[in-house]
Amino acid sequence: MRVKAGNIASNLRQISSYIKIASQAGCQGIVFPEMCVSGYFLGDRWESGDWLAEIHAAHNEILKMSRQLWIVFGSLAVMPNQRNEDGRPQKINAAFVAHNEKWICHESTKCPFFPKVLSPNYRVFDDSRHFTDLRKMMPHQTADELCVGLGSVKLADVSFGLSICEDLWEENYTCKPTQMLASQHKLVFNLSCSPYSDAKDLKRLQLLKDSAQQNQTTICYLNSVGTQNVGKTVLGIDGQSTIMDPSGEVICEGGFFDEELLMIDWNNETSTAASAGSVLVKKSESGAFGRSKFGAIENTLRFLCEEWRVKSCLIGLSGGIDSALSAVLFSRILGPNCVNLINMPSKFNSKLTQEIAQTLALNLNCHYEQIGIQNAVDFTIQQLKSSKLSQLPGFQLNSWVMENIQARDRSSRILASVAAATQSVFPCNANKTETTVGYSTLYGDQSGFLCPLADLWKFEIYEMAQLYNDAVFGSEIVPKSCMTVVPSAELSELQDVTKGLGDPLHYPYHDKLFRSWTERWDRWTPLSVLSAYAAGTLEKDIDLTSGLIAKLFPNAASFVADLDGWWSLYTGMAAVKRMQAPPVLSVSRRSFGWDHREALGIQGTGPLYEELKRKILSV
Amino acid sequence: MRVKAGNIASNLRQISSYIKIASQAGCQGIVFPEMCVSGYFLGDRWESGDWLAEIHAAHNEILKMSRQLWIVFGSLAVMPNQRNEDGRPQKINAAFVAHNEKWICHESTKCPFFPKVLSPNYRVFDDSRHFTDLRKMMPHQTADELCVGLGSVKLADVSFGLSICEDLWEENYTCKPTQMLASQHKLVFNLSCSPYSDAKDLKRLQLLKDSAQQNQTTICYLNSVGTQNVGKTVLGIDGQSTIMDPSGEVICEGGFFDEELLMIDWNNETSTAASAGSVLVKKSESGAFGRSKFGAIENTLRFLCEEWRVKSCLIGLSGGIDSALSAVLFSRILGPNCVNLINMPSKFNSKLTQEIAQTLALNLNCHYEQIGIQNAVDFTIQQLKSSKLSQLPGFQLNSWVMENIQARDRSSRILASVAAATQSVFPCNANKTETTVGYSTLYGDQSGFLCPLADLWKFEIYEMAQLYNDAVFGSEIVPKSCMTVVPSAELSELQDVTKGLGDPLHYPYHDKLFRSWTERWDRWTPLSVLSAYAAGTLEKDIDLTSGLIAKLFPNAASFVADLDGWWSLYTGMAAVKRMQAPPVLSVSRRSFGWDHREALGIQGTGPLYEELKRKILSV
Repeated sequence: MRVKAGNIASNLRQISSYIKIASQAGCQGIVFPEMCVSGYFLGDRWESGDWLAEIHAAHNEILKMSRQLWIVFGSLAVMPNQRNEDGRPQKINAAFVAHNEKWICHESTKCPFFPKVLSPNYRVFDDSRHFTDLRKMMPHQTADELCVGLGSVKLADVSFGLSICEDLWEENYTCKPTQMLASQHKLVFNLSCSPYSDAKDLKRLQLLKDSAQQNQTTICYLNSVGTQNVGKTVLGIDGQSTIMDPSGEVICEGGFFDEELLMIDWNNETSTAASAGSVLVKKSESGAFGRSKFGAIENTLRFLCEEWRVKSCLIGLSGGIDSALSAVLFSRILGPNCVNLINMPSKFNSKLTQEIAQTLALNLNCHYEQIGIQNAVDFTIQQLKSSKLSQLPGFQLNSWVMENIQARDRSSRILASVAAATQSVFPCNANKTETTVGYSTLYGDQSGFLCPLADLWKFEIYEMAQLYNDAVFGSEIVPKSCMTVVPSAELSELQDVTKGLGDPLHYPYHDKLFRSWTERWDRWTPLSVLSAYAAGTLEKDIDLTSGLIAKLFPNAASFVADLDGWWSLYTGMAAVKRMQAPPVLSVSRRSFGWDHREALGIQGTGPLYEELKRKILSV
Repeated sequence: MRVKAGNIASNLRQISSYIKIASQAGCQGIVFPEMCVSGYFLGDRWESGDWLAEIHAAHNEILKMSRQLWIVFGSLAVMPNQRNEDGRPQKINAAFVAHNEKWICHESTKCPFFPKVLSPNYRVFDDSRHFTDLRKMMPHQTADELCVGLGSVKLADVSFGLSICEDLWEENYTCKPTQMLASQHKLVFNLSCSPYSDAKDLKRLQLLKDSAQQNQTTICYLNSVGTQNVGKTVLGIDGQSTIMDPSGEVICEGGFFDEELLMIDWNNETSTAASAGSVLVKKSESGAFGRSKFGAIENTLRFLCEEWRVKSCLIGLSGGIDSALSAVLFSRILGPNCVNLINMPSKFNSKLTQEIAQTLALNLNCHYEQIGIQNAVDFTIQQLKSSKLSQLPGFQLNSWVMENIQARDRSSRILASVAAATQSVFPCNANKTETTVGYSTLYGDQSGFLCPLADLWKFEIYEMAQLYNDAVFGSEIVPKSCMTVVPSAELSELQDVTKGLGDPLHYPYHDKLFRSWTERWDRWTPLSVLSAYAAGTLEKDIDLTSGLIAKLFPNAASFVADLDGWWSLYTGMAAVKRMQAPPVLSVSRRSFGWDHREALGIQGTGPLYEELKRKILSV
């Protein structure tokens, strides 16, 4: 089911329409995913009693529809007389079972709902902030006691087990609800609202398979579809609901980011296999990228533009690969007529990149024009020079100041105004590599309504652009020269691409280095990097081409200087910039934003690292 | 103790120096606050094994100092072979007790540290994300079982109970660690890292008093001092460590935001009273504002400028009260020589406000000049008009677009460049009222390095400015005209202050309305507001002047239109702007940033509200 966060009326209509379809198809029951009434990622909206009342009222609407068939759905339960640990009414992420206009009660709590047992508190998840899980509801029970009648539902003609999202990901918990349920039932549902992240679907399939096979149980995994966000991080909820039979075979599968109604013909309680499932409502096929990161970006962005009513888009096209990919992406989603491309040269922009921009725009069939910034930049510099402040000691219009003036002139003066005048948005085209170390200008290229590409390393930006050419267009829509030109901000003579000059980042190295700081489950700091460097294992450890380190860094001092410099930016100015950056579309195992919480001004190295550095540099 | 987040080396030096002082004074032991080795608010830095190793190494340094006296301190314990629920090594927010170079062990866990029992997961706190508390370490124990030997420390000549921060705020938990400890010990320490928020100190004193009196116990509350942040929210840690005797009297108290070493002469275990405490190390007095919100802002900002190495500041001075207060605040902290004030008029800025700005600058003795924006704005508009895009249907340079062009020209073109050229920062001067509904321009007046005033409602901005005049300066440094001029953005003819025109906000009403949406523990939405309006209790409920509603809104339709409009901005564009706003200095019971988590595009009303509205509007 497509769930729209915060839109109860729309979700109720959707639930009601599926109930009708299922009822007409003669189904005995229907199951909806986790938090399908209100949405799941709602920030602190849960702290409002008004909001809880709205949700409660919606439940009563659903109850009325349960005469023809039983209805299972995930939503929020409230225990108004019990306190959560924050002193607010106790709220429970729960599954509800409505049958003949009555709620079915949970065996051990006697509550008219089935509480989630495990609470995720990592990445973007804040369950313990809002919800009381079954473990906290019954704090004096042992795991075994908790599991008695855990999520067991017995109706007249069917019985099954119910678990919710994290209850499936039980590996690191002392209590294992889904294993327990699978051992007690021949049919288990897991209701989820689980965001896409790279390779997560493989792990999920394995978990389902293990539980199904070990217990000879049919497991139905239901995931919602859509986009929800935690403010600074935009998530794609990728569907892929799965019915797995006791042998571990997938007998029916929902599409990737596709809302579908799957049906199974469940024989009876003692049956060892459900008959093959079928699809009652089937929407579209997944796009050209399949179920990959890139496919997730396209799908999430499509949902987002729909929900945020983004109808047209303005892109500053530099001739580099990042804005080129952004232009391709938005023209695929909004249509070329709704994407306006502008190139904003200063005196430092080469003919080469201007030609690339123009060619790409022509290939995409989007509106294109140049709006120059040199006059305005000159005016600003003149105005600064003639101010009284310029006579104060310390006043410096150095190259760094001049570069940032150009970047801000483009975004804040031109893009923001043109976007407003054309009722458009403009995206921030930053990739993850730049975002890690803040190689960007605040209120300049760091601005926009969204960072659709900031969860892709530079090498993945090239990969996705190449895939568009190869698998989608079948031609060089993104010009070859755009793939080969040296990446450069073109903000000074020292970044002249025609002389092969460009960014201070060596992407084949820094992509992987920065990934070790951000995406490893056990995050690396310079302490691990330098240890691996000293041990000669760094290239292997972070997946570099053999020999690269020696090629880039003639000695330990140059290696350490590079490492310290980028780390200091990553934890320093880059974190400051990220706080003011647009939301990031998340597809990796760790994206910037609220998926990657950070404090400002925290170096995160210490005496051990300083000692190791002294040792290595004194050799 | 002043704790610097993420700076282990500095914290170790500080700990060591206090140990020396205490030792020289003949103390038998010394106690430091929660997480004093690494800092507490570190984002996800805890996910790095390297960081854990750095902390562990620091513990060994402290252990070596425990020959002369016993040392209690709060820091992070790691159980490398136990998993946290996120699969990472189990980490525990704990108290350590070092004595004769040995760690004292916890009775029931047998671990060489004393785990925090309760985990806060509200406001800015994310304890469950990172830390395993005692309840999760021993999931199969009842609350009573947990409390056996909870935090009991028995040394050769003294015994005491140890609790950590939230363990004191036990009201809504089933397990009550501090009560339990107070009933078992005559001396209890609570180690905290507790951020300032309005009136929290009163509640804290009451809690301490209750525990002390009920159990006839001496309670020592230790809070660290400094500023820490969670990225989007900057916190002041306000010290105010307190020693309370069994009668509930404060016998010794640390300063407000002041690092002090308090000493008590503890007679013996059976003593019913500690003798009066004394202060070994006393720093400064708290400022002119006392222990208020305003004092917290001054103190936190002072610490922040020190830690972030902010030495000079540039402020865009409009003549309005917000930027005026900002100028006063920074000139107090950095000194008038280090604050540069610029006024940036367009053709819409009145002589009146320009004169106010100049007078204030003169009064403060800061550098002042005007740098106009009209030429640049005209140039931008001309450039937009001559673009090909301007001929597309839908292109509109309406007043709203023109207003934002002015705001961005000031901040992104002038302030950002001048600040960079003078190695300064510039603050965002937004107040909480504007921030709630996004009455600001992104990359315009919404930009800056910090929002020092965004946790004060408009009426509090006036209050603080008036207090500066009355209690600090004893003269009208902030000109009276600045207090009386109508608040206005002066971005169009419709905002002409000389005609009494200004902001669309009626502050005496909207300040209180918005406060009901954000600061109530049970947050209001339009459902509660409209219900109270219909019941005639709104003025009383949200603390309005009697008769104000009828004066502002002739009928229900106008009331609802205003309510819907601002709510829609609050949950819509304002949330989008807050995601890209600078960090907010937090002083209220609820501040924007990570203290107020929000998803984008979540209206948060529903069918109940729509129904109520229909009913009221159809009367």
